[in-house]
Amino acid sequence: MLARELARTFPTIDLDDDALEAARLLVERRLPGLIVVDSAHHPVAVLPGSQILRFVVPRYVQDDPALAHVYAERQADRLCDRLHGHRVRDLLPERPQRPPVVEGDATAMEIAALMAGEHSPLVAVVESKGGPNPPMIGAISVVDLLERALPPR
Amino acid sequence: MLARELARTFPTIDLDDDALEAARLLVERRLPGLIVVDSAHHPVAVLPGSQILRFVVPRYVQDDPALAHVYAERQADRLCDRLHGHRVRDLLPERPQRPPVVEGDATAMEIAALMAGEHSPLVAVVESKGGPNPPMIGAISVVDLLERALPPR
Repeated sequence: MLARELARTFPTIDLDDDALEAARLLVERRLPGLIVVDSAHHPVAVLPGSQILRFVVPRYVQDDPALAHVYAERQADRLCDRLHGHRVRDLLPERPQRPPVVEGDATAMEIAALMAGEHSPLVAVVESKGGPNPPMIGAISVVDLLERALPPR
Repeated sequence: MLARELARTFPTIDLDDDALEAARLLVERRLPGLIVVDSAHHPVAVLPGSQILRFVVPRYVQDDPALAHVYAERQADRLCDRLHGHRVRDLLPERPQRPPVVEGDATAMEIAALMAGEHSPLVAVVESKGGPNPPMIGAISVVDLLERALPPR
């Protein structure tokens, strides 16, 4: 099995989409993450839900999680208010990562190596030999891959 | 909202359960990860699907992902055969992580800080003041938390 056979259609979000709407898409479709594309619809990043939380948790709380306790319950409930007025590009990690993208002819081992290395719940699949900006065919989740790769009982 | 209100029942696996059966549980229930418990049913780890892949991808391929390409398609399809005869404890990372566990009275900020810091799609919730080995109440996924924490449209 190759990536193009495993790929299925998957919602994408643009770098300039509203951050709050992106989080709502993740929740409504109960997705393991979001595939972020540039203006040419080329996948540039995978945004797992935990990365959205990284943006809303203040830096000093991330550095010292014990400080999370200083927020009263009601104040803590509003943690996602910080997404207001932000774009998807603001949610991405500062250090660029290896793009979670495989070509259509990638094998199960290549897909698994990328997911394992990037701790990514998802990879995007693009056309093989599609040039510098190959179009996206679809995406594969860890569950999709394991479903096909697990030996029969 | 506190962790005990957000927690829902979630399947758990034991450290000594069969690794292949654990992977099947993840696939069948399409879970973001598995909660691993010890013999006292106390949560000790969260196993995201990508961590299962880390176990099945040989170390030298993880060190140099280009080597994944040396596997022929059919050979790559059988990557999960490596789970045979292993237990869940073998799949856990070698370096112990911060346990992805919150007490029942943790706020949304405390839950988010833990998920963000550990890049975890899931946390387990245990009884507050439950002693050194507090019983598990349930679990919260990133999607569950965002669902409750996102501001109304």
